[in-house]
Amino acid sequence: MYELVHQEKNSRARTGIIHTAHGDVLTPAFVAVATRASVKAVEPAAIEEIGVQIVISNSYHLHLRPGEETIAGLGGLHGFSGWNRPTMTDSGGFQVFSLGAGKEHGVGKVASIFPGEDRPRQPGNYKQGRSLVRLTEEGVHFRSIIDGSDRFFSPESVIELERKLGADIILVLDECTSPLHDYAYTKNAMARTHRWAERALAAFDRLRDDPGFPNPDQHLFGIVQGGAYEDLRTESARVIGGMDFAGFAIGGSLGKSKADMYRVLDWTIPLLPDDKPRHLLGIGEIADIFAAVRRGIDTFDCAAPTRIARNGTVFVKGAPRHRINLRNARFRNDPRPIDEACDCFTCRHHSRAYLRHLCRTGELSFYRLATIHNLRFLTRLMADIRTAIAADRFAALEEEWKAGG
Amino acid sequence: MYELVHQEKNSRARTGIIHTAHGDVLTPAFVAVATRASVKAVEPAAIEEIGVQIVISNSYHLHLRPGEETIAGLGGLHGFSGWNRPTMTDSGGFQVFSLGAGKEHGVGKVASIFPGEDRPRQPGNYKQGRSLVRLTEEGVHFRSIIDGSDRFFSPESVIELERKLGADIILVLDECTSPLHDYAYTKNAMARTHRWAERALAAFDRLRDDPGFPNPDQHLFGIVQGGAYEDLRTESARVIGGMDFAGFAIGGSLGKSKADMYRVLDWTIPLLPDDKPRHLLGIGEIADIFAAVRRGIDTFDCAAPTRIARNGTVFVKGAPRHRINLRNARFRNDPRPIDEACDCFTCRHHSRAYLRHLCRTGELSFYRLATIHNLRFLTRLMADIRTAIAADRFAALEEEWKAGG
Repeated sequence: MYELVHQEKNSRARTGIIHTAHGDVLTPAFVAVATRASVKAVEPAAIEEIGVQIVISNSYHLHLRPGEETIAGLGGLHGFSGWNRPTMTDSGGFQVFSLGAGKEHGVGKVASIFPGEDRPRQPGNYKQGRSLVRLTEEGVHFRSIIDGSDRFFSPESVIELERKLGADIILVLDECTSPLHDYAYTKNAMARTHRWAERALAAFDRLRDDPGFPNPDQHLFGIVQGGAYEDLRTESARVIGGMDFAGFAIGGSLGKSKADMYRVLDWTIPLLPDDKPRHLLGIGEIADIFAAVRRGIDTFDCAAPTRIARNGTVFVKGAPRHRINLRNARFRNDPRPIDEACDCFTCRHHSRAYLRHLCRTGELSFYRLATIHNLRFLTRLMADIRTAIAADRFAALEEEWKAGG
Repeated sequence: MYELVHQEKNSRARTGIIHTAHGDVLTPAFVAVATRASVKAVEPAAIEEIGVQIVISNSYHLHLRPGEETIAGLGGLHGFSGWNRPTMTDSGGFQVFSLGAGKEHGVGKVASIFPGEDRPRQPGNYKQGRSLVRLTEEGVHFRSIIDGSDRFFSPESVIELERKLGADIILVLDECTSPLHDYAYTKNAMARTHRWAERALAAFDRLRDDPGFPNPDQHLFGIVQGGAYEDLRTESARVIGGMDFAGFAIGGSLGKSKADMYRVLDWTIPLLPDDKPRHLLGIGEIADIFAAVRRGIDTFDCAAPTRIARNGTVFVKGAPRHRINLRNARFRNDPRPIDEACDCFTCRHHSRAYLRHLCRTGELSFYRLATIHNLRFLTRLMADIRTAIAADRFAALEEEWKAGG
């Protein structure tokens, strides 16, 4: 499914094409987050118009609502949502283990461990003191955050769940560790993730020719774990990288700093096969995009660009961190678009002054307009990155963005 | 500005054209509510695509945020919002007097008197026991619900405010009474409203040739008051109807039932000049639309069709009250559009099952998709009404909708 088009001379950055039953993805590419089969605040047709090539939904959330049977009955995620372009599903491992991690470490709040992620809602019938997650070799028992009911995910059941959802690229169930897990715990979790990966591959093979699923042409990605420990990451990259997956994701704890994260990529990527795509889970700051692409990442997803948009923060090249916040009083009478150089719907139609007004008065249309801009901005950035790589001048582009930001 | 095209033989229903500097409005027409210069959840370009001909914004809300100077500086409401079609502004009288009515009657909550309207937010520095509104012959003093600051509206200051906002049709400041006001109070308020109407007309004439406003071609509408009292309504219709307004709105209390409201229209409309348009403030249920048009109303505005959409209630001809609620479990696996006969974006792209999922999970895109459908439904209904009137068969169309609903 992956075609390597151009490997840059001076870095690991590369361009390529991921072929799927719902179209091609030119890489490097940003994967827009559509957790519940919807990019927050923007309908699928507008996502396509922006030029977003691929979205990622979450199997865990969709299992809870509306349920995979409903989605399968309506033609899988593509038929259900009306988004007819390439789609990924995350396995939900991260969400399941997030429920338990706070308790294990006595931290109290999951949000303090996973600051970038939405905090799970507390269900009305949540019982204090009863763990939400129980892990066995077979799989993981957890309680629904919607109604408190008992649920069970195994490597096999998640493959079946994802086959029902019908995304083009699906991820295995992994045991997700946090930066607070120690070496021994992380090593055990990694070993289990490797055993689960074998089971997921076997389940995927068993169901491969089953005609009862909406998308016959799915591709399964493995997930490299191992925390921020060099020997574990290299072991996981060798083991997972040696299995018959269509591509690989790098998941779990990427350490406590950007430097840690970059080291994880440096340890891992050289050990993965060059002829398969590499996805980085949950990363999307502009500096991180450049750092990851330079190290050989092809795709990454992140909720931050759309989440910050809803809070008034929009991308402008050259502003501090390439961002402005539209709530700021200096935009009150500003007739200019967010970004003079942007061709998105929002910049073609509306001024900073009007957008600031919508944001401050809580008008719902603001969320969509700001999200459209941020996604278009990233889409154009990724196109520029692909062009730079093709000309072996990725480093120059990265310098240009460092200087401006 | 108003051209009467066809007066039906068997009722007061009529078709016409309101000519404005930003285009024509074919009447009868529904006026979409864009309180803060934005139809809630839908950007202006989509409102135009739906076929909405005219929107109404609220001078009171826009005075508080972002302020009329900001809007005037960006070219008035049209330049500010990017909506380049006909626009009205309400004077804000209703909102100002809503702040006081609860206290005067000891009812406690404005919402219990004006159940159809958004309740004003309580500001952080609101002092218990201090009235929010003080009325004099000169005008009305009130406190900002945003920051508690003292504000003053007079018939003259509201004309200047609306000239800065630049809508095509603007309404005078009136003293708005509630169904709980007695005959004596309502009579006094009506008399003051008549005096204020003269002052508003004089102020409008004084500012007519002032080049400092964004829209030189505005039209001022008077407002008929008088509560649910026949002698007051007929007096008000004669007095206001005899003044040199471009059109007339029917405002204030329309009584405590639909029958009361229909009587107010029966008393009032025959006394208004036939060569000027008539607007009914705050009415929008389907049965009421037919009742009002049959009695000679040309335009009306109502927040309900967009508000109920955001709560999951969408129009389907023939359903009970021509509505369904998408939260209902029976739509869980329903692959059909909201309405098979509808040509709106939502019905062309998405199933009831997907929309139900978005609604139940609180996805922001739901609000826009549901609102688009309800506005398109009303836009098509109004076109059908105009066609029926042109053929002198309005009563048959009304019967058809009564039978189906």
